[in-house]
Amino acid sequence: MPKNAFYAQSGGVTAVINASACGVIETARRHPERIGKLYAGRDGIIGALTEDLIDTSLESAADIARLRHTPGGAFGSCRYKLKSLEEQRVQYERLIAVFQAHDIGYFFYNGGNDSMDTAWKVSQLATRLDFPLVCVGIPKTVDNDLAGTDNCPGFGSVAKYVATSMREAGFDVASMARTSTKIFVLEVMGRHAGWITAACGLASETEGEAPHLLLFPEIPFDLEAFLQRVDHCVRRYGYCAIAASEGLRDADGKLIAETGTRDAFGHAQLGGVGQWVAQRIQDRLGYKYHWALADYLQRAARHIASRADVEQAYAVGCAAVEAALAGKNAVMPAIRRLSDAPYAWEIALTELRQVANVEKKMPREFISPDGFGIADACRRYLSPLVEGEDAPPFLRGLPDYVRLKNIGVAKKLADFVP
Amino acid sequence: MPKNAFYAQSGGVTAVINASACGVIETARRHPERIGKLYAGRDGIIGALTEDLIDTSLESAADIARLRHTPGGAFGSCRYKLKSLEEQRVQYERLIAVFQAHDIGYFFYNGGNDSMDTAWKVSQLATRLDFPLVCVGIPKTVDNDLAGTDNCPGFGSVAKYVATSMREAGFDVASMARTSTKIFVLEVMGRHAGWITAACGLASETEGEAPHLLLFPEIPFDLEAFLQRVDHCVRRYGYCAIAASEGLRDADGKLIAETGTRDAFGHAQLGGVGQWVAQRIQDRLGYKYHWALADYLQRAARHIASRADVEQAYAVGCAAVEAALAGKNAVMPAIRRLSDAPYAWEIALTELRQVANVEKKMPREFISPDGFGIADACRRYLSPLVEGEDAPPFLRGLPDYVRLKNIGVAKKLADFVP
Repeated sequence: MPKNAFYAQSGGVTAVINASACGVIETARRHPERIGKLYAGRDGIIGALTEDLIDTSLESAADIARLRHTPGGAFGSCRYKLKSLEEQRVQYERLIAVFQAHDIGYFFYNGGNDSMDTAWKVSQLATRLDFPLVCVGIPKTVDNDLAGTDNCPGFGSVAKYVATSMREAGFDVASMARTSTKIFVLEVMGRHAGWITAACGLASETEGEAPHLLLFPEIPFDLEAFLQRVDHCVRRYGYCAIAASEGLRDADGKLIAETGTRDAFGHAQLGGVGQWVAQRIQDRLGYKYHWALADYLQRAARHIASRADVEQAYAVGCAAVEAALAGKNAVMPAIRRLSDAPYAWEIALTELRQVANVEKKMPREFISPDGFGIADACRRYLSPLVEGEDAPPFLRGLPDYVRLKNIGVAKKLADFVP
Repeated sequence: MPKNAFYAQSGGVTAVINASACGVIETARRHPERIGKLYAGRDGIIGALTEDLIDTSLESAADIARLRHTPGGAFGSCRYKLKSLEEQRVQYERLIAVFQAHDIGYFFYNGGNDSMDTAWKVSQLATRLDFPLVCVGIPKTVDNDLAGTDNCPGFGSVAKYVATSMREAGFDVASMARTSTKIFVLEVMGRHAGWITAACGLASETEGEAPHLLLFPEIPFDLEAFLQRVDHCVRRYGYCAIAASEGLRDADGKLIAETGTRDAFGHAQLGGVGQWVAQRIQDRLGYKYHWALADYLQRAARHIASRADVEQAYAVGCAAVEAALAGKNAVMPAIRRLSDAPYAWEIALTELRQVANVEKKMPREFISPDGFGIADACRRYLSPLVEGEDAPPFLRGLPDYVRLKNIGVAKKLADFVP
């Protein structure tokens, strides 16, 4: 008898997490003898806890195919971290109860570090309770800080977006620098790891091209050294373009974002590292600046997704189902790089317990010795990840994204408040 | 005997001003019997004043063709407004002197309101001095506020970028709203006219889709009415996405950007309307927000340019040269709309004096009665302008833009400080 499956999206969404969902659903549909219905959690794991399940079998094949080019999380995601089995045993047991009530034998969890930890714990508890459940994690994070995989689906498209945006803004500022703006700062995501900041560096291929300076969360911010470099760039190239991580920290490890501005009510304003840095330049060097805050635009930019990223996101979704059907429990399909140029990769299974809660930092040798740029090794690593285009279809001049019907499944259990 | 030509880019650059340059140069090259060399001003009109001319004949046909897909201003632009002939007679006479020294008989000026005014004044002075010069303006501005033309090259691509970005961010926020971010604010350009803000509205095609609210510079900001609408959206749709013009003003006409935050040194922080608005929502309604500042990214985003915009930018460049060759002086090729759907347009010549210094505002009837959205008439006007894609070539995963050699012409006159 086929068992049903459960799939949930977790944490911050990306331009390609739906490509993974597409891979999961399309692969599951090819195995009706083994997998019955595929239920998605509405708003992530919260949907499992509250028994708010979406019946994906009611979506057409055409709409599921369109997921591959639709950003965001089609079923909703959530920031909800399950802690240890001891602290939140009730929650974990509730998950198993919901799975049991809906005859769910496969659990697919699409997320980052925390989610891989949760998936691993669920697999442990199911084993302990002798509940037959195959748990497979599916990697996703724009931060690229997930262990056990060469890179993480979601990152390549952000990388392509920020590098493209930086290159384009660089052409703009270079045009205007003689009489107007000389400084441009782009603030990007990555609170703990500088992968996205590093990706901005791909925009510059020969000396003098934007960006000229990168501000990594891994490198304590030295204002004086920085200002000296900015001034040097302006004198030499006429302008200076900078990528700044939202997670930039001072020498004491304090977030620059928290040292910055206060609003009219005296509240500290988080974010705005880019503006803070730009304002210091104007105050000290007198150069006019512009700054941009990419925020959600960077992680939702499906219109400029990396083809490699889309293919990998889809592939890990397919591989997760195949792994589950092969009886592999507590694993995560990971990306293994076979060669840089031409870029070649394959999917390999990693044990969830080796991934859970391990943060993959940027190696120091990926950052140039002065701390303001990327090293060649980093460029070799990053470049293949932004390769290829995969434009979505356009309708009336705008990307044509799908909204699923997301029809709920009748509840069988009593209410539960997570 | 052929005369040489002078071309300059003026003011804030766009994703397609180089497409106009491409049209000018390619058309001029097809008429060697009438047009000798085409010189470009380095950094705009400043290059003419300082006799800093670029010899475009030294660029290959292939590189000139690549201008069509390269953002920014290939020869540099500047913010330098020539005032009245009376106030700055020396400057105007210097222009004529430089044109005379380099045997220039054609003056092409690619810019917005101010530039059309300058081009008109130069044509007046040339006539008065009996200097044979044909002056043709070429429209360019992301703000779409140039008179005498249905729309302005540069705007359509910004419109496509902001509408796409808003749609994508909307999918992101909708996914996260259950447990995390409920508010998203995108701050866009357009200090005096709400055309770019209006374009964000294209992203929403059915009720409930992002953006839910638009904040126009033309509509005095009413915080209480706004908060009420935000709360309504969150209760009804789960989230609220907002596009805010950088030029948003309060009931007294004061820029919101100037009422906002102060930095650690007590300096008023310009910009950040988006954050200011978002922070008011958090303070009063308690909803978590994200905000993005598109800044230069929006006007440099050649990767998502509107094909209609690229074609029009190229066409006005070609038409400018053709008009000059036909002896039309003090004119500007404008875009005349023939039909909305299917979109059809043609180039028509407008008198420069009818364009100079006239600002085209958004008609009030383009804004919905409540002031927070666009009316159907506005949608009919805007929609064709974002039609079609025209992706640049990509190399190593990033848009492949051209950098010209920009070789200078030997000076013949004494130095001049503008």
